[in-house]
Amino acid sequence: MPHLFIKELKPGQMIEDVYMVTQPILRNTSRGDLYIAMYLSDKTGKVNCRMWQATQEIYESLPKEGFVRIRGKSELYQNAIQLIVNQVEVIDPDEVSLADYMPRTDKNVSEMFNEVNSILGEIKNSQIRALLSAFLSDKKLMKEFCTAPAATRMHHDYLGGLLEHTFTMLKVAKSILPLYPKVQADLVLAGIFLHDIAKTWELSYKMGFSYTDEGQLVGHIVHCVVMIDKKADELAANGTEIDRDIISNIQHMILAHHGQYDFGSPKLPATAEAFMLSRIDDLDAKMNQVVTEIENEPGDSDWTMWKNPLQTRLYRKKVTEADQLGE
Amino acid sequence: MPHLFIKELKPGQMIEDVYMVTQPILRNTSRGDLYIAMYLSDKTGKVNCRMWQATQEIYESLPKEGFVRIRGKSELYQNAIQLIVNQVEVIDPDEVSLADYMPRTDKNVSEMFNEVNSILGEIKNSQIRALLSAFLSDKKLMKEFCTAPAATRMHHDYLGGLLEHTFTMLKVAKSILPLYPKVQADLVLAGIFLHDIAKTWELSYKMGFSYTDEGQLVGHIVHCVVMIDKKADELAANGTEIDRDIISNIQHMILAHHGQYDFGSPKLPATAEAFMLSRIDDLDAKMNQVVTEIENEPGDSDWTMWKNPLQTRLYRKKVTEADQLGE
Amino acid sequence: MPHLFIKELKPGQMIEDVYMVTQPILRNTSRGDLYIAMYLSDKTGKVNCRMWQATQEIYESLPKEGFVRIRGKSELYQNAIQLIVNQVEVIDPDEVSLADYMPRTDKNVSEMFNEVNSILGEIKNSQIRALLSAFLSDKKLMKEFCTAPAATRMHHDYLGGLLEHTFTMLKVAKSILPLYPKVQADLVLAGIFLHDIAKTWELSYKMGFSYTDEGQLVGHIVHCVVMIDKKADELAANGTEIDRDIISNIQHMILAHHGQYDFGSPKLPATAEAFMLSRIDDLDAKMNQVVTEIENEPGDSDWTMWKNPLQTRLYRKKVTEADQLGE
Amino acid sequence: MPHLFIKELKPGQMIEDVYMVTQPILRNTSRGDLYIAMYLSDKTGKVNCRMWQATQEIYESLPKEGFVRIRGKSELYQNAIQLIVNQVEVIDPDEVSLADYMPRTDKNVSEMFNEVNSILGEIKNSQIRALLSAFLSDKKLMKEFCTAPAATRMHHDYLGGLLEHTFTMLKVAKSILPLYPKVQADLVLAGIFLHDIAKTWELSYKMGFSYTDEGQLVGHIVHCVVMIDKKADELAANGTEIDRDIISNIQHMILAHHGQYDFGSPKLPATAEAFMLSRIDDLDAKMNQVVTEIENEPGDSDWTMWKNPLQTRLYRKKVTEADQLGE
Amino acid sequence: MPHLFIKELKPGQMIEDVYMVTQPILRNTSRGDLYIAMYLSDKTGKVNCRMWQATQEIYESLPKEGFVRIRGKSELYQNAIQLIVNQVEVIDPDEVSLADYMPRTDKNVSEMFNEVNSILGEIKNSQIRALLSAFLSDKKLMKEFCTAPAATRMHHDYLGGLLEHTFTMLKVAKSILPLYPKVQADLVLAGIFLHDIAKTWELSYKMGFSYTDEGQLVGHIVHCVVMIDKKADELAANGTEIDRDIISNIQHMILAHHGQYDFGSPKLPATAEAFMLSRIDDLDAKMNQVVTEIENEPGDSDWTMWKNPLQTRLYRKKVTEADQLGE
Amino acid sequence: MPHLFIKELKPGQMIEDVYMVTQPILRNTSRGDLYIAMYLSDKTGKVNCRMWQATQEIYESLPKEGFVRIRGKSELYQNAIQLIVNQVEVIDPDEVSLADYMPRTDKNVSEMFNEVNSILGEIKNSQIRALLSAFLSDKKLMKEFCTAPAATRMHHDYLGGLLEHTFTMLKVAKSILPLYPKVQADLVLAGIFLHDIAKTWELSYKMGFSYTDEGQLVGHIVHCVVMIDKKADELAANGTEIDRDIISNIQHMILAHHGQYDFGSPKLPATAEAFMLSRIDDLDAKMNQVVTEIENEPGDSDWTMWKNPLQTRLYRKKVTEADQLGE
Repeated sequence: MPHLFIKELKPGQMIEDVYMVTQPILRNTSRGDLYIAMYLSDKTGKVNCRMWQATQEIYESLPKEGFVRIRGKSELYQNAIQLIVNQVEVIDPDEVSLADYMPRTDKNVSEMFNEVNSILGEIKNSQIRALLSAFLSDKKLMKEFCTAPAATRMHHDYLGGLLEHTFTMLKVAKSILPLYPKVQADLVLAGIFLHDIAKTWELSYKMGFSYTDEGQLVGHIVHCVVMIDKKADELAANGTEIDRDIISNIQHMILAHHGQYDFGSPKLPATAEAFMLSRIDDLDAKMNQVVTEIENEPGDSDWTMWKNPLQTRLYRKKVTEADQLGE
Repeated sequence: MPHLFIKELKPGQMIEDVYMVTQPILRNTSRGDLYIAMYLSDKTGKVNCRMWQATQEIYESLPKEGFVRIRGKSELYQNAIQLIVNQVEVIDPDEVSLADYMPRTDKNVSEMFNEVNSILGEIKNSQIRALLSAFLSDKKLMKEFCTAPAATRMHHDYLGGLLEHTFTMLKVAKSILPLYPKVQADLVLAGIFLHDIAKTWELSYKMGFSYTDEGQLVGHIVHCVVMIDKKADELAANGTEIDRDIISNIQHMILAHHGQYDFGSPKLPATAEAFMLSRIDDLDAKMNQVVTEIENEPGDSDWTMWKNPLQTRLYRKKVTEADQLGE
Repeated sequence: MPHLFIKELKPGQMIEDVYMVTQPILRNTSRGDLYIAMYLSDKTGKVNCRMWQATQEIYESLPKEGFVRIRGKSELYQNAIQLIVNQVEVIDPDEVSLADYMPRTDKNVSEMFNEVNSILGEIKNSQIRALLSAFLSDKKLMKEFCTAPAATRMHHDYLGGLLEHTFTMLKVAKSILPLYPKVQADLVLAGIFLHDIAKTWELSYKMGFSYTDEGQLVGHIVHCVVMIDKKADELAANGTEIDRDIISNIQHMILAHHGQYDFGSPKLPATAEAFMLSRIDDLDAKMNQVVTEIENEPGDSDWTMWKNPLQTRLYRKKVTEADQLGE
Repeated sequence: MPHLFIKELKPGQMIEDVYMVTQPILRNTSRGDLYIAMYLSDKTGKVNCRMWQATQEIYESLPKEGFVRIRGKSELYQNAIQLIVNQVEVIDPDEVSLADYMPRTDKNVSEMFNEVNSILGEIKNSQIRALLSAFLSDKKLMKEFCTAPAATRMHHDYLGGLLEHTFTMLKVAKSILPLYPKVQADLVLAGIFLHDIAKTWELSYKMGFSYTDEGQLVGHIVHCVVMIDKKADELAANGTEIDRDIISNIQHMILAHHGQYDFGSPKLPATAEAFMLSRIDDLDAKMNQVVTEIENEPGDSDWTMWKNPLQTRLYRKKVTEADQLGE
Repeated sequence: MPHLFIKELKPGQMIEDVYMVTQPILRNTSRGDLYIAMYLSDKTGKVNCRMWQATQEIYESLPKEGFVRIRGKSELYQNAIQLIVNQVEVIDPDEVSLADYMPRTDKNVSEMFNEVNSILGEIKNSQIRALLSAFLSDKKLMKEFCTAPAATRMHHDYLGGLLEHTFTMLKVAKSILPLYPKVQADLVLAGIFLHDIAKTWELSYKMGFSYTDEGQLVGHIVHCVVMIDKKADELAANGTEIDRDIISNIQHMILAHHGQYDFGSPKLPATAEAFMLSRIDDLDAKMNQVVTEIENEPGDSDWTMWKNPLQTRLYRKKVTEADQLGE
Repeated sequence: MPHLFIKELKPGQMIEDVYMVTQPILRNTSRGDLYIAMYLSDKTGKVNCRMWQATQEIYESLPKEGFVRIRGKSELYQNAIQLIVNQVEVIDPDEVSLADYMPRTDKNVSEMFNEVNSILGEIKNSQIRALLSAFLSDKKLMKEFCTAPAATRMHHDYLGGLLEHTFTMLKVAKSILPLYPKVQADLVLAGIFLHDIAKTWELSYKMGFSYTDEGQLVGHIVHCVVMIDKKADELAANGTEIDRDIISNIQHMILAHHGQYDFGSPKLPATAEAFMLSRIDDLDAKMNQVVTEIENEPGDSDWTMWKNPLQTRLYRKKVTEADQLGE
């Protein structure tokens, strides 16, 4: 039986299906009875859920974030669908088709990863090649790199988003680097590949997207630098010394890639390569964000709602025909 | 006899040559005698100049900005070269090889302009094509477009700079537009071509680079919008009506292309095309500025002086070999 | 039968009357039936409205913004009045007494307009007179000028607001200009008259106040400049040449009248006249806004609610007697 | 013998005249001899002065700020006039015509003060009248009020500047208050009269303009509030009780009159009267500053130098004829 | 019978008890009947309350802020407890145990006040001692000083909070002053004692915490300065003259203690003592705020909700054992 | 023969002594001869130096930063001492008494270091003790820790400054932690010890104070985090596992210790300990900076020059007697 998606729920349906559960809380009703409040979600949305006549035991059986098979009924409460659940059973994530529960890039992951490898393969500097190999040959890390989102919201906030963002930036860089021949292409390509690699560590994306404790306290920008320093140490221990100049230039590009202090960069760009990386990152992040906001706005109005991070509403009426250059 | 460039002047030389003169002022010496203070310059630099025993007549013969053949001598004053002039004769600019006096793009102007035409030729929307034709067929304007600098300082501040900046942006756009298929390519290309076109009107670049009065009071961003509105009116008067939607979308892209209010944009980007234009403009301007700052810094230090507009010193040591991807 | 105003509605009333309708949306109930959600409003307020048992046909008959005669009943829902409608009939706006539906200045429009003409009549510079005549003799524009609001919210946000704001500013200017004799009075008066004239184009005020697409994308500040340039071109075509100096000074005043970049001015004031215009505009806008906020706050508390645009609550207790100078 | 003004000094003149002396310092020459460096000034300018072969005794006889009769000679040093002094004699300020040494309003002080009294005489609220009388009858304070500058630089930075600024603001208020009948005129007029009254205490203007220690540490804004509180206490001790509501409203207007925190106002305007006061203050200060900058710029260029506090150069070309409304 | 605390209320209880009442409003029901809406609160929380079948007379008998004995019933409305009241009787605050209704420091007030006296007793400068004595011997003021909160929210927002904040700051100062021997300890201690003393005047804390009208219009920072000036005047009238230098240094410390203009300080720190005071104030306020936010967050999550004034969520997991240095 | 200090130089002296040389440049005189311009300095100041009749060989023998024995003569040039050198000989830094050339803390280094050890010895958490031991037992690092300045300017900008700053902060923390018992003292003490430890790596202080290339590109804040991660890895490799919770809490404190993004912190404080560390750091840095600015200002004026980083002039008149609490 196919999964019943959240956005397809109608009030008054009897439901027996598997959903992702988050933030279960045990509370007292006004009569003093116990009930559980929680969220149920899949990749199409999230709803409130109440389980009346709950017990301490049921509550303790629930993961803070995980999967449950529920049996219950949908109802309309304050203009929104809510699920009233009678039974709840914890499900092993391995039994679940994750694809139904988490948004995911609509591009081909292995093709993108191959293309990333191919572009990085054009790097000529042997030390940079060695450093990147240390990352590319780290299978566990590369698997996470292909799975992680690039952010929890704003842009590329879906599984595979980190890879897609990195891939697109590499494509942009490769096509425009010939226009700026004074820029050290090897550094730019290496910097792009590594600039968000610690998102794999900063973000939690097993069940929904959030920050790990360490990620929140330290941040991916700084942890990228730590990861590079450690990889370089490992290489040195195995006889492959990377010049500190190369390491600190790549680290600088990463530290400066948000472009300004207010966005969490502890350094402003101070090399041509750092400027290029920060601009390509901003370009790709903004284009993904703007196009997604435009596509996701429901209805057919020409203007979207106010978008606070962009400080504007967006105008999305197409004024030129479809069969143009970019398509 | 070849021109003696300012930066090659040594103290104690007898000089008879043509220089650009700017800001002549008539003053009294402490004894009450009249003298003229002025600047003499060519594309390699600018020096102070004094003409003692001057007269009101000589002063009034001088242009505020123009060319003079001087006869005099160089001397060292407060660690800088200064010219003491005995004779000064005003020269018609037409007799002068402007190339010696104004910095100029080192790229081929007609090749760039042809390429601009070629890229714009790929636009499919017939109304946008008509609008651009109205500009491209304006010979006087196109001559200025190929001659003007893109700015008086910071980036592309040399003759042909406006064309070079526009050309490079079009190249960038053409290569990255396929990566963002939802973006209306025709609008982006038209917006790039027109985004700084009123620099031809805002800037004065006959003798040195400065702002015209109107340019300073109104600004190129707003005047671009005026120019587009007038061209559209002319087209309409000749039977070619352009949709107001297309006009206002292009005007919006231009008004928003500085990306933030503080940089003089009266509108923030509110379309995908406006975001892309503002990011490509920033990318190309910053790369030109950073590479130029790095190249122009005298000496061989790894770090440049503090660059206030960038809020940093720049690190310019090459850490990778020359024969890399980008070259 | 007089119109039943929104603010006089009580729950449980049977209603048959004409209201302005905005933002109708067709939705499904939880049972899958269709219903229409929309707003109904007049100059005294706006309420939610639901039409159950709606059809696609009824929905498509409704204007996005227009007038409807409804038959239905009021009820209280979540502490607010809501209308449940059984019948809805679209009404031609021409049959409607607009005065009931849109807030309007309580000052006399024709008296104000005459006074504007009279003050502008004192301008001595013949070119400026010619330029203003080109606007004053544009009957369609002047009708809009007398009708448009000065803004959609904040200050003078009612029909006739643009005229009232312009009129008051001219009165202020006329009374204080003698205190600043170095300021060119003709420029200031002309600048005030034209500074918001493109609000007639930027705003839509047929049914409620909003921005036109072009207005939102380009903005009234820039379009004022376009309008002036075109009027000057028309005059020139008819043999009346206006000095570019005069045109660009007036355009500068308008571009700079918001006083700072953050408020959408692409230029900062750079002439004495531009400083005076920006200060008089700010004075009149703020006084209208503050007095209105104080008057409109319901209840009798000495302090209003927090006013975010002013970053304060307002204290409105009168501490002096009424019979004072200003009354 | 008339005073020889600084700006009329030519090199090589023998001079015996009285100048204001500031910042005398005793130093060693390279040979170990003592000399005194100091500034000499009058209302037309300031020059460096050196007294060679000085002694500790001469140095100690000099006031840090005062008047001296010097005998010496002018010379040109690094493009500027410098005085070499042989004799110096301290002069009692009472023997000096202060008018030669300090810039002063070119308006009639007693006429302005009478007009201030006359405008304040129209106030109807008896308590406010009583409070103002306590100030107006304070002869010492009123003498300072008529003498002090309004600032050390930027606007009204000359003797009588405080009175002129207050006077002009009262004139503006009186002419525009009828346009805003909801505003309590009595409060506005009282607030204007008192808003800068503590400049008399904050500034030192006996010899040049500077801050007193207390003025620098506490500031005129806060001290105005202290002065009002004390005057009210004195009145209460004499049987005239002023409502705290009136006092705190006036104090609020004063605290908020700089309009924003960054300019040293500890409160933002929160009453209609405070808004009006802050706007009239800004209007008059800016108009005085801009007109003065335009007038004082030497030369005949259309644009002034860059004015940092205004973040612009100023355009000062007159584009309309002289015989206009404002004159 | 002990007071039934708000946070212990369950739906469906019959209640007869005394609560603090705030913001009573008389309104019409949809049927046109009168009812009163008001808040009832004690130190543990605040709930909505409705009295149906109310009369104008009952409404007018209610204080805007005061105590009432109510008889009624609790119910659940929109997930929150609400009281439906049948009878309401106004109670004299003197009959009420204030401790049940207002949050209060959990430290010992008289011990803290004694310690404050003891630390101030170590001041050596006799004039400062005299000034402080004038405050310490003002019994009414000292009673308020021991009762007032330090703020209405953010930090030390409970009765006794002003004393606790002042006390802790004095303890910090006393322990760190020996590390900075160049700092004038007497000034720092006096400044700390007086820096918020006008909170007693700025805040209303008889029933809930709010601002007085005067406090809101003028602010505690400025009123502290007024209070000091008046105390110094009184002392002078009694023969004890305090140097203006000392007074203005203390006043400066107080004016500058918020550390930046944006936080309402009209002066930035300009003495070593002002820097120290502003830093100790910030340290103690932030530590109280952060620890309180961490303690008050319900639930057992490691991260608190987003705290807007701190621009972060707070991490509160203890990672070290309890028996450490600080305990 | 004792070193002749720069600040004791008088014009006309014959000099033969050792000075620090920085920034030697080879230039042409106006006659085309070669000369060398360079700076000579010691801990008391820095002067310009010219060596006429120089050769390419001499120039190439000079270090960019190092020590030279020069023979020459002092002269006065433009009001400043300048050295004219005939002979120059490079000196091995090891032969030089560094104490004459670099400013140095006036506190006892070994006493401070012992006290640091003693305070850290009170930490109870065994994992934190282990982590700190890994740093404290790193002899090379501890030697640098005792030698490095805390900054190149602003505060503690002298040899031993890093130790003095860390030591004072630990003293402050130890004395105030008992006032905030909910704060985890062990974390605060560890965080203080490590918060600037990478200054040893960021700064170059062999000859004058500057940034290393790596330090400039990456920064001490980030490198502290790298150092901690590596030490933890080493400990783990040796069997002592440190909880990631502890590591990331300490790293967070360090990343957030500048307190705001604009000052280069990539994270804002999000734990009570991070808030305390950032406030103690700011307190100690500012007190050192302010006291030093006050002490170093030459002359006896009550006000220092304008201090741009503090946005104020400083008032330094002592208004209380010397024998007070703090001394």
